Amino acid sequence: MKSRKLLMIPGPIEFEPEVLQAMGAATTSHVAPNFINSFGNSLELMRKVWQSKNGQPFIIAGSGTLAMDMAAANLIEPNDNILVISTGYFGERYANICKRYGANVTILTTDVGGVVSLETIEKELSKVNYKLLTLTHVDTSTGVLVNPEPIAKLAQKYNTLSILDGVCSVAGEEIKQDEWGIDVVLTASQKAIGVPPGLALLIASKKAIEIFKNRKTPVQNYYADFTNWLPIMQAYENRTPSYFGTPPVNLIAALEVSLQQIISEGMENRFMRHKKIATAFREAMLTLGMELLPISKNYAANTLTAVYYPKRIDANAFLKHIGNNNVIVAGGLLPSHKTQYFRVGHMGCVNNNDLIATIVAIEASLIACKYKFEIGAGIKTALNILNT
Amino acid sequence: MKSRKLLMIPGPIEFEPEVLQAMGAATTSHVAPNFINSFGNSLELMRKVWQSKNGQPFIIAGSGTLAMDMAAANLIEPNDNILVISTGYFGERYANICKRYGANVTILTTDVGGVVSLETIEKELSKVNYKLLTLTHVDTSTGVLVNPEPIAKLAQKYNTLSILDGVCSVAGEEIKQDEWGIDVVLTASQKAIGVPPGLALLIASKKAIEIFKNRKTPVQNYYADFTNWLPIMQAYENRTPSYFGTPPVNLIAALEVSLQQIISEGMENRFMRHKKIATAFREAMLTLGMELLPISKNYAANTLTAVYYPKRIDANAFLKHIGNNNVIVAGGLLPSHKTQYFRVGHMGCVNNNDLIATIVAIEASLIACKYKFEIGAGIKTALNILNT
Amino acid sequence: MKSRKLLMIPGPIEFEPEVLQAMGAATTSHVAPNFINSFGNSLELMRKVWQSKNGQPFIIAGSGTLAMDMAAANLIEPNDNILVISTGYFGERYANICKRYGANVTILTTDVGGVVSLETIEKELSKVNYKLLTLTHVDTSTGVLVNPEPIAKLAQKYNTLSILDGVCSVAGEEIKQDEWGIDVVLTASQKAIGVPPGLALLIASKKAIEIFKNRKTPVQNYYADFTNWLPIMQAYENRTPSYFGTPPVNLIAALEVSLQQIISEGMENRFMRHKKIATAFREAMLTLGMELLPISKNYAANTLTAVYYPKRIDANAFLKHIGNNNVIVAGGLLPSHKTQYFRVGHMGCVNNNDLIATIVAIEASLIACKYKFEIGAGIKTALNILNT
Amino acid sequence: MKSRKLLMIPGPIEFEPEVLQAMGAATTSHVAPNFINSFGNSLELMRKVWQSKNGQPFIIAGSGTLAMDMAAANLIEPNDNILVISTGYFGERYANICKRYGANVTILTTDVGGVVSLETIEKELSKVNYKLLTLTHVDTSTGVLVNPEPIAKLAQKYNTLSILDGVCSVAGEEIKQDEWGIDVVLTASQKAIGVPPGLALLIASKKAIEIFKNRKTPVQNYYADFTNWLPIMQAYENRTPSYFGTPPVNLIAALEVSLQQIISEGMENRFMRHKKIATAFREAMLTLGMELLPISKNYAANTLTAVYYPKRIDANAFLKHIGNNNVIVAGGLLPSHKTQYFRVGHMGCVNNNDLIATIVAIEASLIACKYKFEIGAGIKTALNILNT
Repeated sequence: MKSRKLLMIPGPIEFEPEVLQAMGAATTSHVAPNFINSFGNSLELMRKVWQSKNGQPFIIAGSGTLAMDMAAANLIEPNDNILVISTGYFGERYANICKRYGANVTILTTDVGGVVSLETIEKELSKVNYKLLTLTHVDTSTGVLVNPEPIAKLAQKYNTLSILDGVCSVAGEEIKQDEWGIDVVLTASQKAIGVPPGLALLIASKKAIEIFKNRKTPVQNYYADFTNWLPIMQAYENRTPSYFGTPPVNLIAALEVSLQQIISEGMENRFMRHKKIATAFREAMLTLGMELLPISKNYAANTLTAVYYPKRIDANAFLKHIGNNNVIVAGGLLPSHKTQYFRVGHMGCVNNNDLIATIVAIEASLIACKYKFEIGAGIKTALNILNT
Repeated sequence: MKSRKLLMIPGPIEFEPEVLQAMGAATTSHVAPNFINSFGNSLELMRKVWQSKNGQPFIIAGSGTLAMDMAAANLIEPNDNILVISTGYFGERYANICKRYGANVTILTTDVGGVVSLETIEKELSKVNYKLLTLTHVDTSTGVLVNPEPIAKLAQKYNTLSILDGVCSVAGEEIKQDEWGIDVVLTASQKAIGVPPGLALLIASKKAIEIFKNRKTPVQNYYADFTNWLPIMQAYENRTPSYFGTPPVNLIAALEVSLQQIISEGMENRFMRHKKIATAFREAMLTLGMELLPISKNYAANTLTAVYYPKRIDANAFLKHIGNNNVIVAGGLLPSHKTQYFRVGHMGCVNNNDLIATIVAIEASLIACKYKFEIGAGIKTALNILNT
Repeated sequence: MKSRKLLMIPGPIEFEPEVLQAMGAATTSHVAPNFINSFGNSLELMRKVWQSKNGQPFIIAGSGTLAMDMAAANLIEPNDNILVISTGYFGERYANICKRYGANVTILTTDVGGVVSLETIEKELSKVNYKLLTLTHVDTSTGVLVNPEPIAKLAQKYNTLSILDGVCSVAGEEIKQDEWGIDVVLTASQKAIGVPPGLALLIASKKAIEIFKNRKTPVQNYYADFTNWLPIMQAYENRTPSYFGTPPVNLIAALEVSLQQIISEGMENRFMRHKKIATAFREAMLTLGMELLPISKNYAANTLTAVYYPKRIDANAFLKHIGNNNVIVAGGLLPSHKTQYFRVGHMGCVNNNDLIATIVAIEASLIACKYKFEIGAGIKTALNILNT
Repeated sequence: MKSRKLLMIPGPIEFEPEVLQAMGAATTSHVAPNFINSFGNSLELMRKVWQSKNGQPFIIAGSGTLAMDMAAANLIEPNDNILVISTGYFGERYANICKRYGANVTILTTDVGGVVSLETIEKELSKVNYKLLTLTHVDTSTGVLVNPEPIAKLAQKYNTLSILDGVCSVAGEEIKQDEWGIDVVLTASQKAIGVPPGLALLIASKKAIEIFKNRKTPVQNYYADFTNWLPIMQAYENRTPSYFGTPPVNLIAALEVSLQQIISEGMENRFMRHKKIATAFREAMLTLGMELLPISKNYAANTLTAVYYPKRIDANAFLKHIGNNNVIVAGGLLPSHKTQYFRVGHMGCVNNNDLIATIVAIEASLIACKYKFEIGAGIKTALNILNT
């Protein structure tokens, strides 16, 4: 579908050949013994990647938005107080989702590129009795990274459930679900998990499952209802078949392959690789005189980077030149700033070659756009970081 | 995943090699021009397969249950009167889904293997002012086929919307959505559509979209809300990108391939092929002295067949022997009769060879189970039908 | 390339999905560690399949004819006396090859469909001092099977080297190279070995290698010269790289997969499966009133069957109808009888389903050709044999 | 087989995904209509790539060495005078091949990295009546490029046949077989042709075919004999099946895909792309203070580059570090200099990203090996050339 072009958007990303082979293998029955085993293994491997021994994993056909929706639909009842900590488009989306389920939603926002301070969050938590808070680990629209650990601790302090939208972070940014005490960590397959789009993935803590089980009202959303899926996930993890809806067999086979590769790399190695590559990319962009959308490097994600176009550059021409250099990057997403920045994904099985190719394509495009800069300076900066 | 075993369950089924190649091709961006074109083509090809020029197609990551859920969630408002015409497990499920959205649900059922008479339906429609009725074209749990045309006409007569659950029928059983006046025809990818599981597919009539647009209450289910997806589908059909959730790129590429193959075969040819193969299979089973779950051949589906195990046969041993003959069939699904019957899917790119192999495996298994019958009689019956 | 049609010719055949996946995987370097290992494993696995601990395996890019050519070119010197035992087209070919290398060739033939008697062979061996004899295990043109063991014993008695053309037999018909004392057993990848065409494969005994090493004249054929390849094969088996010509990386990766599958099945099981399937097919053809090309069942191969067209049948129409039934079979090959018979391959991963589908297609074609027979009789015969 | 590592050796190279898909597609019959068409198309497309309307193309299972062998075996008779113009390992090999067929071989060599002058060649041609001369367009062992046009003209002047060993040049370096009057241009699939290894490819001029047809002695090599293959190639080009040996079906299907891609790019564009990329790589190496094996840039190939290791660098450590950077390059091949240089292939579908990744890996490796140089200098040089 993309010949030998390099796909450097914040999902879907480049996938390992073994993952694509699993995608294209002849589909078997959803109750065939080897598929049951793949499904079971995938659930167990998720626990390792999420660093959650005690949580309940779910693998459902759908997009990342479904994962967000599931978490909300199952934990929220009408008139619950919900606190949404937003750093962009997907924070706004979470507020909308929560409202859909009848919640009283308070949304904490900040300037574009910034993060909500812990003080602000604590102040709000101490003011109202919130049942649940949501935070976006990395907002795909802005590349802003939030540190979930202290927020999760605050949530616990105020007896509030926490949902981490890890769509653009799980398997790329450090997460320790059990240790940090996060109640739901959710993601989608096509990001750092390294599998073509089509899977919503999440792990819910024991407490979250308990809250769900003690609901007073039925879950409003039928497809997303844990009631339907919980026995299925438990059955497959016990290596017995069970049916609610037909699982996406090929995607789950591919998921098993990718999760095994992730575990083989080791979570710490993987986080460090993401960090190094992200640092190299950010510093290269800064060297070229470009500005990042996150207002501080401390808030800049390791899975993608959002960069403002230089002034007086034609954004369309700039992106087109990058494409001509066999690299695919993404435009802006945040409605208010959409035309002012572009986004580069650097997660999953991304390697130094991919990153350098991307910086080269960006430099080549800047040249074509008559932007003044020291040719090769971005590459040099990146190399210095990658080679340490 | 399944070596050279033949997958003869009612979905997932055997897929064409070209479809699997599309599944395993390197994923491109969801806004790459060639993907936009694949998505747009798929939407247009759906119109041809559904025989609906005027409807609005939707392609969403999810299972067939999501397609059912979407239709209900978008068209039902609390306290609507909904009539569910049930012929098995999936009729029951539709009743549950409708209740979830606050409907007053009346469910018309009948004996296992039978269909609800038109008289009963009309009587009910004339009694209560129903906003919407649902019917299962082929219930995957029973293999019972319902003729949708007269029911759709009745629905129109009583100004009632109609939803056809075509999960186990679209692209296998005759459907003329526009001509018959059905408001929603929904299905899943892994059945007669011929694509690995992971896509919910439906076309909604203009009237259905209008009813949706004039809702007084918001759609209760966020992920399933047409509001989110309608602009996306319209954009891709106009060959422009748009974003709500990341579309399942590989599945849609595979869908385009399969829909093109379906159109190449021709809808009439395809329906006739399904009919001939189904007839051959049913008659073979009857010749072997087995009984069908549908109480009349007139109600027997062309996409799958449900057959009672012969008396005194150990069901597990029977199914295992079939597996040893490199054919995979499915057990029962209807809770009340689950252990009494098995199901064989014969849809999509199924051909005579697949069918004969299945009958041979069944005969071989019957021999192994010491069932008394004239060896080869089933094959002979099937051959006579296939060769006419 | 063939959609879901069943390929039932005597090579190429149906291949296992895992073998095709290896074919399509991204090519690595011919000196990459994992490829060195695949190559080394393949050489070792060949020893198990050939049942030869002491021989020297060779894996070379080329067709089966290259394997025949290599054996002759390396072992024959001008004016050597060579005895060719022929049962068809490929015996004739071997005589031509031997002549090309300056040999005095005596060819023993018999009526089409027959085999040369041991008496005739011994008489000839006792008359002339033959350096080498060749025999065709299964002649792909006639489906005639020769028992190699007693001929190999005769060769030893008369101090004559033996070459077994196993193109259509290795991994399908019983062969015990060491035990039977055969000096070269050669084959091609696309037959019972189960790998797409492109590999010439052979194992040469210690004695053959010694004879080769003591040649007085250089090997006439450069590409086929063991001198070039022997160090390469030894290096890869020792898991070190070495270069003469670039090995066909993807084919060798596929070979490793297929040889592993063969060993997993077990050689005895594999031979028995081939025998049962071949018997079922032959008996089915006889039941339908057709005649086999081999004049005795004792000479009928287990890897393919050659069948005369019934009288007054249009051969082209007959073959075309079989194709319309999604089965591909082969026409005749022996020039003198080419238009009088067809050939069906049943080797490698062939299973009962494939065989039955083929018989069904043949019966369907006979019906279409207005041939008089009891419909289903062939199937019934085959089933009775397969189910015992 | 190689995960996401970049394969930058002088063959096999990176292949386009569409080519690999054709490799892995289910094999069909060698006489199936669609395969006949693929084979016929491939022969016709070869004519376009070779720029030879009048020549006879051959596609045979084997390695590049087989292509060399075929040309020699068919055109040489014992005691023919043959002139071999050598620039490395493969010139030496050609001399050996010619000797094998009884030729009196004169070999013209020069210092490693140099080319034989036209004067030397003409002097030799004027002295002896040579039937045939061979020249290596690009010697894979040295990366030395010879200009074939003037040598071909000299050959014609002296009524001498010419064979161009284009294993490492066809589809990468400019060749106009008809216009330049070269009698045989031969290659292998895994180089700039862009198909996994396993195919020997050549086009023979009308004159060459005539010389072959008028041989007084039989071709010594059976497998390579044009007599066997000529009718096959003619049949397939006429879209009729014919049999000598089973053609390598999957490789030929892949060949058709790749030749179509080559023609789509356009021969002139393709040559210019190779030239630009090669120039960028060479200049980058020179900027880093490394030395090329070719003694003049005028003799440096556009398909691969041979570079001396810097002094006091541990070659094994150097190559290993490159591998750690996910790039695979090749060591030396010329026996006399094997440990002193390495080789980088840059042909086929190679793009700027691949080249830059390779230079980055080389720079990273030089850093790790404590070589003193200005970090980034190689990249900068390459970028300046690629961006013009």
